[in-house]
Amino acid sequence: MKDLFYNYIKSLQDKVTKEFESIDGKAIFKEDLWERIEGGGGRTRIIENGNVIEKGGVNISSVHGELPKSMQDYFKVGKVDFFACGLSLVIHPLNPMAPTVHANWRYFEMYNKEGGILKQWFGGGLDLTPFYLFEEDVKYFHQTCKAICDKHNSKYYLTFKRNCDAYFFNKHRNEARGVGGIFFDYLKKDDTSSLKDHYKFVTGLGDSFLNAYTPLLKKRKDIKYTAANKIWQEVRRGRYVEFNLIQDKGTLFGLQTNGRIESILMSLPPKVQWKYNYHPEPNTEEARLLKVLKFPIDWV
Amino acid sequence: MKDLFYNYIKSLQDKVTKEFESIDGKAIFKEDLWERIEGGGGRTRIIENGNVIEKGGVNISSVHGELPKSMQDYFKVGKVDFFACGLSLVIHPLNPMAPTVHANWRYFEMYNKEGGILKQWFGGGLDLTPFYLFEEDVKYFHQTCKAICDKHNSKYYLTFKRNCDAYFFNKHRNEARGVGGIFFDYLKKDDTSSLKDHYKFVTGLGDSFLNAYTPLLKKRKDIKYTAANKIWQEVRRGRYVEFNLIQDKGTLFGLQTNGRIESILMSLPPKVQWKYNYHPEPNTEEARLLKVLKFPIDWV
Repeated sequence: MKDLFYNYIKSLQDKVTKEFESIDGKAIFKEDLWERIEGGGGRTRIIENGNVIEKGGVNISSVHGELPKSMQDYFKVGKVDFFACGLSLVIHPLNPMAPTVHANWRYFEMYNKEGGILKQWFGGGLDLTPFYLFEEDVKYFHQTCKAICDKHNSKYYLTFKRNCDAYFFNKHRNEARGVGGIFFDYLKKDDTSSLKDHYKFVTGLGDSFLNAYTPLLKKRKDIKYTAANKIWQEVRRGRYVEFNLIQDKGTLFGLQTNGRIESILMSLPPKVQWKYNYHPEPNTEEARLLKVLKFPIDWV
Repeated sequence: MKDLFYNYIKSLQDKVTKEFESIDGKAIFKEDLWERIEGGGGRTRIIENGNVIEKGGVNISSVHGELPKSMQDYFKVGKVDFFACGLSLVIHPLNPMAPTVHANWRYFEMYNKEGGILKQWFGGGLDLTPFYLFEEDVKYFHQTCKAICDKHNSKYYLTFKRNCDAYFFNKHRNEARGVGGIFFDYLKKDDTSSLKDHYKFVTGLGDSFLNAYTPLLKKRKDIKYTAANKIWQEVRRGRYVEFNLIQDKGTLFGLQTNGRIESILMSLPPKVQWKYNYHPEPNTEEARLLKVLKFPIDWV
């Protein structure tokens, strides 16, 4: 399963970066290969200053070794070895009318002292962070997620949609990072689903990612916008930074497992503003967005 | 002591904000009074978009109630009541040749079940974060800190300077946030120093703050700079954000005690950039700064 999934994310990285380069038309991804001292490494691909994409990363990594102490405590296991591989991507479009997207799919193994598999599971998801709310875009994104979920388990979509709303939430602001999508930290095997089923589900999501996101990017990338729209985007990106650095377990995992800092923090937006106590005027497009972030709704 | 120190920081806030307004010549501080549901509140003063100061805050707060669970664990105490008051300030100058400054002085009390004082202590410090290195400025700042320290205890300066280097350190980047200053989390009473001595020391630092920082600001605020200098400042401000959101216990304390979010996060810089894997060219002014951040040195 390790090799099968790693080969999958390698080819998915190729497919996704090729498509984003084609949409951008100017910038291309820069590739960095890196190694982790304790075992493993990754292939980081970053795009910056494009026509369409202001900054983005589509990274894969595969790390292994002894599970760090803090993660032992988190998983309530003793000193064990682990393996983890996954693909993480974040795209920050230049145009504030186009949403930022994040996706991650990962596979994890933990071993007993004899080297046998103690636990193994998939996790991940995809979610959308718009700066201006086009309801049809959000519905389309959620519908695409739901279609894949429904092929596998009728309960997946609603469960993972709720997970996503709960997880990508800035507790200190009492507001969601974006309009969600789906998120599952740990797919559990049961009588009706095997690890192989989970592989099919996760790769099904990977296969559909471009179809879920790029139509929105293409539709919004050339809309005229004002300097005020851009300021709003940069202020909202500040909330994105707050989530990733204060709340996100993925970022924490990367920092604690001595991952490559520049690959982990590639998720941070290119230009960000923090204005003191900044609130949009009532009955504006900006206020309309905040409303659905404060009170997440069902989109499909 | 509670009232004595709170009155001191109230008048210090007045003095400091008046002086920064006078230096800025355009922007004035906006005041917000706030209350904390669990007890206490604060007086937040923020300045934005000035001639000299791009963003800054000089805040006082006084909070009390039951110590939050996470702080009970941190202090290794049970369920106890606490009182904390302090002044926190951060000034982000517009000109990248002028350094950002941060200072904080605080007083803390914890009570036993009968309401008696279990522990009481002062903490705080002041530190400098330049974007371009003017060695004479850093020396002057440290010398001013040392002069106050030396009046009270010959060991204070070196101990607190080392504390500061160790504390304001981005572990995940293996580099200091800035060029330091002094920092003391918890002043201990002993045979030679009483709480009253600590009050004199901390207020001595408060009284000297403007003298430690404003000469540097005045000297650098009108230096001509390029767009590239400004980009470097905004990239370095990204490291400032990383420290405050990932590493800083003060920010965490604020978030965990249900402090006012906008007052806590006023420390975040106004405009920030994250560029992927951005390194200055060798033998540039930017590289010279990084060298002293990677390997903190003694300035006096």
